[in-house]
Amino acid sequence: MLRRRAILDLILGRPIASEEEQEERVGPVRGIPILGLDALSSAAYGPEALLTVLIPLGVGALAHVTTLTLLIVGLFGIVFFSYRQTIDAYPNGGGSYTVAKENLGRGASLVAAAALALDYMLNVAVGISAGVGALVSAVPRLLPSTLPLCLGTLAVLVVVNLRGVRSAGAAFMVPTYAFVGALLAVLVFAAVAAARHAGHPVPVVAPPAIGPPTEAVSVWLLVRAFANGCTAMTGVEAVSNGVPIFREPSRRGARRTLGAIIGLLIVLLLGVALACRAYHVGATPPGRTGYESVLSQLTAAVVGRGWFYGLTMATVIAVLALSANTSFADLPRLCRLLALDGFLPQSFVRRGRRLAFSHGILVLGVASGTLLVVFDGVTAALIPLFALGAFLAFTMSQAGMVQHWRRQGRHRGKLIVNAIGAVGTGTTFVIIAASKFSEGAWLSILIVLALVALFLGVRRHHDFVLRATRTDDALDVCHAPRAPLAVVPMRAWNAESLKALHFAIGFAPDVVALQVLTDDHQADDLTNRWAELVERPARRLGLATAPRLVVLRSEYRRLYAPLFEYVKRMVDQHRGRQVAVVVPETIEPRWWDYFLGSHRSAWVRDLFLLRGDPQIAVVSAPFYLREWVFERRRLRVSSP
Amino acid sequence: MLRRRAILDLILGRPIASEEEQEERVGPVRGIPILGLDALSSAAYGPEALLTVLIPLGVGALAHVTTLTLLIVGLFGIVFFSYRQTIDAYPNGGGSYTVAKENLGRGASLVAAAALALDYMLNVAVGISAGVGALVSAVPRLLPSTLPLCLGTLAVLVVVNLRGVRSAGAAFMVPTYAFVGALLAVLVFAAVAAARHAGHPVPVVAPPAIGPPTEAVSVWLLVRAFANGCTAMTGVEAVSNGVPIFREPSRRGARRTLGAIIGLLIVLLLGVALACRAYHVGATPPGRTGYESVLSQLTAAVVGRGWFYGLTMATVIAVLALSANTSFADLPRLCRLLALDGFLPQSFVRRGRRLAFSHGILVLGVASGTLLVVFDGVTAALIPLFALGAFLAFTMSQAGMVQHWRRQGRHRGKLIVNAIGAVGTGTTFVIIAASKFSEGAWLSILIVLALVALFLGVRRHHDFVLRATRTDDALDVCHAPRAPLAVVPMRAWNAESLKALHFAIGFAPDVVALQVLTDDHQADDLTNRWAELVERPARRLGLATAPRLVVLRSEYRRLYAPLFEYVKRMVDQHRGRQVAVVVPETIEPRWWDYFLGSHRSAWVRDLFLLRGDPQIAVVSAPFYLREWVFERRRLRVSSP
Repeated sequence: MLRRRAILDLILGRPIASEEEQEERVGPVRGIPILGLDALSSAAYGPEALLTVLIPLGVGALAHVTTLTLLIVGLFGIVFFSYRQTIDAYPNGGGSYTVAKENLGRGASLVAAAALALDYMLNVAVGISAGVGALVSAVPRLLPSTLPLCLGTLAVLVVVNLRGVRSAGAAFMVPTYAFVGALLAVLVFAAVAAARHAGHPVPVVAPPAIGPPTEAVSVWLLVRAFANGCTAMTGVEAVSNGVPIFREPSRRGARRTLGAIIGLLIVLLLGVALACRAYHVGATPPGRTGYESVLSQLTAAVVGRGWFYGLTMATVIAVLALSANTSFADLPRLCRLLALDGFLPQSFVRRGRRLAFSHGILVLGVASGTLLVVFDGVTAALIPLFALGAFLAFTMSQAGMVQHWRRQGRHRGKLIVNAIGAVGTGTTFVIIAASKFSEGAWLSILIVLALVALFLGVRRHHDFVLRATRTDDALDVCHAPRAPLAVVPMRAWNAESLKALHFAIGFAPDVVALQVLTDDHQADDLTNRWAELVERPARRLGLATAPRLVVLRSEYRRLYAPLFEYVKRMVDQHRGRQVAVVVPETIEPRWWDYFLGSHRSAWVRDLFLLRGDPQIAVVSAPFYLREWVFERRRLRVSSP
Repeated sequence: MLRRRAILDLILGRPIASEEEQEERVGPVRGIPILGLDALSSAAYGPEALLTVLIPLGVGALAHVTTLTLLIVGLFGIVFFSYRQTIDAYPNGGGSYTVAKENLGRGASLVAAAALALDYMLNVAVGISAGVGALVSAVPRLLPSTLPLCLGTLAVLVVVNLRGVRSAGAAFMVPTYAFVGALLAVLVFAAVAAARHAGHPVPVVAPPAIGPPTEAVSVWLLVRAFANGCTAMTGVEAVSNGVPIFREPSRRGARRTLGAIIGLLIVLLLGVALACRAYHVGATPPGRTGYESVLSQLTAAVVGRGWFYGLTMATVIAVLALSANTSFADLPRLCRLLALDGFLPQSFVRRGRRLAFSHGILVLGVASGTLLVVFDGVTAALIPLFALGAFLAFTMSQAGMVQHWRRQGRHRGKLIVNAIGAVGTGTTFVIIAASKFSEGAWLSILIVLALVALFLGVRRHHDFVLRATRTDDALDVCHAPRAPLAVVPMRAWNAESLKALHFAIGFAPDVVALQVLTDDHQADDLTNRWAELVERPARRLGLATAPRLVVLRSEYRRLYAPLFEYVKRMVDQHRGRQVAVVVPETIEPRWWDYFLGSHRSAWVRDLFLLRGDPQIAVVSAPFYLREWVFERRRLRVSSP
């Protein structure tokens, strides 16, 4: 036990007492990596997502990339101001679920929670596989190890998050800030070069030529490009949901973190868009030979393929792979809120040794690990399901805030900000749903509905259990508790059954030993030896009634059914009296011995508990083989 | 419960009493399909296996096929006579294990058992995948369903065998005899045609031309062809092992069945070899385009590609897929023998509702299902591991019989027959091991050794448990059993904990209620209400000591550790007295509710049993939510 604990301490860190909670909280410097990785990593794939849809326009795409990016950046602005207000209004964490619950009612809140949960789950699988995919395309030798790399990254995320919030912040600080720094440096170089050459810089390494246009510009194409670019906005919700992780005054920490994340993101997205235009960088068709990511083309064009290119790409890969962390920081928190309201099992409420919501972290780890294994580490098929959930949750949250201000009756300005947010995100939701419907958005919607049904089902069960067990009755004084009858099932006469019998005599005045005989196992009928083994010693002990022996023959070779039926009959004959079935349970010294045992006692116990009767209790009387070994050794040592 | 039983009756048949055993036994007509499917199916793949090795010889192969087949047939003859003698000597089933155990000792018997077990396991996976492979190559549309088809076949075999020996015989009779009949008909047609055309019949559909020779004849090549052809001999052991399934006099039934199986097989193998030679049919390289099985070429050449061709091929496919049945008939029987001697867990001894050895059948089903899933239904890679085990077991069995006759001191003739058998099968074993060593035979040998180690480990554990628990002591009269102390862990005051407390008061004079409080779950400290809820009613009940309340605060949010440590301290303080931990266990009404529960009671129970102390017993006091529902309904109905 001690050794196991030492290993756990090494992996997960020493346990943290509940009172030390304040010290586990963080400021904006750690808050950005913890809650912002998902959002910031969007700078790596957002522009690419947008440009990929515009490939059919050829060079013409570059004319639209700035406009569309500006639209997205505008949306970011709206979201920033409205979430700032949410943070102020809900200092204990104002995720979409909370805001919708308090202002729009149960239905809306569950839809928001389900949408967010789906988005977070997909984010883990998609983020990790995108990061590992980028690594593998940089180092093709690693291709066969794609799945192990994905699962390894996932394991790191799970362990780091189980270690608690502070250590997650510390672990992810370096890659996050390195990524932001490197990308900003590339953009500054690009700006300087563009300024020198009057807006037409000469690329150090020329990007692949953009193909000829194959399609005319259409509104539908632009709308789809916009919708695709909006995947960049997932993860923004995280901060308003995670307010409680910040040091007091936590509102201020959360506001600053949100501002920093969105500010950085706006600069990076706009910078990349402008640089792409200046350097004539377009998307290359993914999955074909000659594919190169937009960021790789751009970096090579600006700084060449030297060590700085390598460094920048390494940070991109790291940030993509770790962007899944936002889900680990936030989803368990959401699950806890749902569990507190009875929409998820209670185990999601408990904090682990490091004050993290261990259960949610482990469940998320297993779920996304399964997704990765099923899709063999290539989860591109899941991308269309993505982003829809985030925008649904955004809209619910914004609409909830509108209602919040309306109820308060003042703060007209704030109401308008949130209303603009609601309309903006709502419109985007409709655009995404419409443009990606057949690609998989329909599945997202189905999954959200299924999750809502699950939440409601769990709540119904939760309420049912509560109703069934809640009582303020004191101890019953009308029915004085009576000593129970005891039944001891035994296969043969041995040390375990002897111990169980002894224990039964101790608490029950009437004891029945039950032997079930079948043709398959040779066991001696105990009838002849019973007087000598039990009855005579019982008389010497002065027992009022000696334990009786009942031998049952099972012609269908069933061991449990005859036993079960006998006890049931006994219960019917003694209505109002408890019957204790004393099961001798042999405890093996080593865990692998479990596979060698017959598990008869576990079967009997489960049978009586699951199919039993309120009058029947099951007593497990353990017999430790381990003790027997020690005892023998002791005797051997002490004997001359 | 009733409904579940009806479904089981439908699938598995009504239970059969132990006394009805005689009626479950069979005669040779059913015995051949049950025990002979594996051997007979060899006619379908044996010649092919032999010819495939000879491909490099081109047309020259046909000159050797009859000689090699004659050698194999000769080996069959030897095996037939020696196993006939084994059946006579061991009327209760004389598998290699029994014969080796009684004559050569433990080591040899375990090697024989391990070799046989490996062979039987491989036989299931390889047989099913070969049959499904043949089906798929005939109907390419089914290719994507290879794995489901394999698993479906496996499921049929498992269920049919669980239904008992008689119904297995009935189920497999039609395909077995149809196969034998169809193949014999093809051979008769071929013989007639050959006789008409003076040994040079004109094929109806010309088989693919045999390629030019690429290698000269070498001894090594012929030896390898012989070794490959010997795969035809697996499954012959089954009859001598399965003597007890035959109606009395069971020896006669077994002898006749063995004779029929080997006789048929000799005719089929020789017939196919001669017909191949007459029709110039050679093997085509497997796995390349243009591959066609030898039997398909031969049937098409003799009768054309009409309905009879289709019928013959259908029976070939069926027999290949069902050849796995021999393993299901025999391996569980072998496992039972091993379990009776303590080399496998006791559960292998018990016969199921239909007198079949259900546990062994299910274990074999799961093991081979896993193999099929891992290899995705294509188990060709396992074929080199095959046959070695069978010949090792043959050799052990024959050598054991030699020793048997030597001990008896007479029956010189019989001794010679078995000695010839031992030398023949032993030589073949060496040939196979040498020629297939690098292809996988080394792995077979390793697995056999690992299985032997497993058997010995299980036996050691078995002996240990027996030593530790065996006792002839009567009930202890020196230490009068004393009423135990009771501890009732409770999270809050509710119906379950009330019930557990009530039960504890019934059997223990001293009861402690233990409440563990953490910061995560809001539960009320019961201290203030204890007097009213428990102490006052206890006084009214006239209890000598009212149950005490102990509240523990867990600053690290652990629920079980404080409870466990408290009880351990209690045990130390009251040496020699039993402590009963009464765990309230909520039983959910529907099985899927299991996933919603917190399983706290199961955790507590397992903690105390696995890490506990001989002085601690665990009492599970069930609280049935189901009962509560019924109760409510009853009240609602009875109230006006």
